[in-house]
Amino acid sequence: MKKHDILIQNNERKAKEYIESLEEKKPLFLCVIATTETAKIPGISAAGKYPEFTDYTPPADAELIYFGKCKCIDAVPATPEGIPTPALITMSALKLVSIPAFVVDAGCRVKPHAPFIGLGGFPGADIRTGRAVNNVDEVLRRAESAGKQFSKTADYLVIGESIPGGTTTALALLLALGIDAKGKVSSSMPNNPHDLKAQVAEEAMRAAGIRFGELHSEPLKAIAHVGDPMMPALAGLILGASEVPILMAGGTQMAAVLAILTALKPEVLRNIVLATTKWILQDKSSDLVGITRQIFDIPILGADLNFGISSNAGLRAYEEGVVKEGVGAGGTSIAAMLKSGGIVNREILLREIDESYARLVGHRR
Amino acid sequence: MKKHDILIQNNERKAKEYIESLEEKKPLFLCVIATTETAKIPGISAAGKYPEFTDYTPPADAELIYFGKCKCIDAVPATPEGIPTPALITMSALKLVSIPAFVVDAGCRVKPHAPFIGLGGFPGADIRTGRAVNNVDEVLRRAESAGKQFSKTADYLVIGESIPGGTTTALALLLALGIDAKGKVSSSMPNNPHDLKAQVAEEAMRAAGIRFGELHSEPLKAIAHVGDPMMPALAGLILGASEVPILMAGGTQMAAVLAILTALKPEVLRNIVLATTKWILQDKSSDLVGITRQIFDIPILGADLNFGISSNAGLRAYEEGVVKEGVGAGGTSIAAMLKSGGIVNREILLREIDESYARLVGHRR
Repeated sequence: MKKHDILIQNNERKAKEYIESLEEKKPLFLCVIATTETAKIPGISAAGKYPEFTDYTPPADAELIYFGKCKCIDAVPATPEGIPTPALITMSALKLVSIPAFVVDAGCRVKPHAPFIGLGGFPGADIRTGRAVNNVDEVLRRAESAGKQFSKTADYLVIGESIPGGTTTALALLLALGIDAKGKVSSSMPNNPHDLKAQVAEEAMRAAGIRFGELHSEPLKAIAHVGDPMMPALAGLILGASEVPILMAGGTQMAAVLAILTALKPEVLRNIVLATTKWILQDKSSDLVGITRQIFDIPILGADLNFGISSNAGLRAYEEGVVKEGVGAGGTSIAAMLKSGGIVNREILLREIDESYARLVGHRR
Repeated sequence: MKKHDILIQNNERKAKEYIESLEEKKPLFLCVIATTETAKIPGISAAGKYPEFTDYTPPADAELIYFGKCKCIDAVPATPEGIPTPALITMSALKLVSIPAFVVDAGCRVKPHAPFIGLGGFPGADIRTGRAVNNVDEVLRRAESAGKQFSKTADYLVIGESIPGGTTTALALLLALGIDAKGKVSSSMPNNPHDLKAQVAEEAMRAAGIRFGELHSEPLKAIAHVGDPMMPALAGLILGASEVPILMAGGTQMAAVLAILTALKPEVLRNIVLATTKWILQDKSSDLVGITRQIFDIPILGADLNFGISSNAGLRAYEEGVVKEGVGAGGTSIAAMLKSGGIVNREILLREIDESYARLVGHRR
């Protein structure tokens, strides 16, 4: 009988060893937050009712993680259709098994009303300027130093992100590094706007004067031109914490970080797996596996959640491919299963998430 | 034979139990940093060559903790006579036994070039305005939330501070809460300027319209009027982390935090000790024990360091009563002794500190 509700893709042997080695160990969760002007291009992001709301989504996610409620906005972040942030999943998973969590601000326009670790970063520009991120080296270096400290506080780290529009900047970054990611990055929308994303990424590369693959050995330069502030922060945390195992908790945005790490210091990858959700692994409109196979044979774990039986329509929508992942939802769900030795499974997770939803969003139907 | 180079004052039974219970356990160090205009009153602080330099001392201390060198200034912080910051002791103690450390910014004018946890605080005003600290409630609340997370990452916490001029604001706060602290707070200078401190504290209370003891049950109001930004941050961290043992690492400034906690939530004090240096306990010009006895029968531990045999004049000066304590130097030294099970003692600490000094300050004599 399968002990955990975890799916496996790629490198099954290593994935199973990894799961076994983390069983009942103590994780710590870090969520890197940032915002960009790219996210405000109409049609790019569903992480907010209107494009301007994307500035509030990451800090509101951070507040959910710390306080179980938002402070900088009245409701929880949601898509234009009202489907709530995956931070609901994250906060429920963290709470069930008491996983310590910290928020790392890589560059948010609106700061969370919560303690957060600052790295001296700034919000990202619109990548179509070709000058996306300031201060890349400094943010990477500071993140590395924070990662080193955090690695001493836990048996392993789970690192997620909340950055609206992040799959578009991931696409541009991957192209700059020579990874064929066109039509392959995921989306929080049911209809993945691949054409718009490709158009934005290509305009970014044109503005920066970069051809496909041209910066394959200069990932920091690629971030500065067409990336986003989450990237140097997340890469730096991993570089600093590489003495301990790390779950990179996210979808195709994490593939971009993986490509950066491969170019910077490939030896850190031996201790890393991708951890995401079933909804990403089963998504027909994106191809996480197809992207990562071009980079590194990294094991991919998927939290096998099932929201089809949720009492809340806003959660059942996840089964239709809305939202899918973010804020480390898949990775923290997996960490909760592992830490509990299998006591926490998808039913228990859903019950907790349903309760959080009812308390924060209010209406069941 | 005495196992550790630790002195004990007050409540000896509890102190010994405490030491025993922490033996070989895993600590985590937090350093709260902030700056104030009070520190720039001539003659108040020795934490910087000129009063204006006090803005750089806390961020430079933070950089020493993370990187083993300063970034925002060229040298290490020092008194006008060139006696170096106690952060040298702290960084050496942390390094010897690999204690994770994080810096919490309660309100610095100059931010460290390092990752730090922000709480939404601002630098403190000159207390003589009677309006010393903005945002007290918010900083306390955020610190509480950070403390709660940190308490899940370690067996116990060591919490220190770096805030120039902090004993003067501590004096004013203690007076507002009804603690007779006049002539009793410590100083980083060999000649403790008690008259000047008393004059500044009294002017602050006059400006705020507060009489001695008037705010004994309103500590947050007292901070806002005559305190400093370190106080709500440190008190909040302790409130949030009170499930685990805590070493309050500092001298008479920690007595002010103790008084705040007594007024806010005395039950958290059961799990707390003060941890400082021999130089504070033996100081004739201040009276930590005399202050704390008015507040709570808290055990006081003192790191029994001996710099008389240092090869560096700048460190030997500590034996003359210069600097004495700060940046959690005493508490982290004690934590290093405990974590190592007695392998790290004052000789090993001094050797490491001497080496750091030689590397960072350069000249031996």
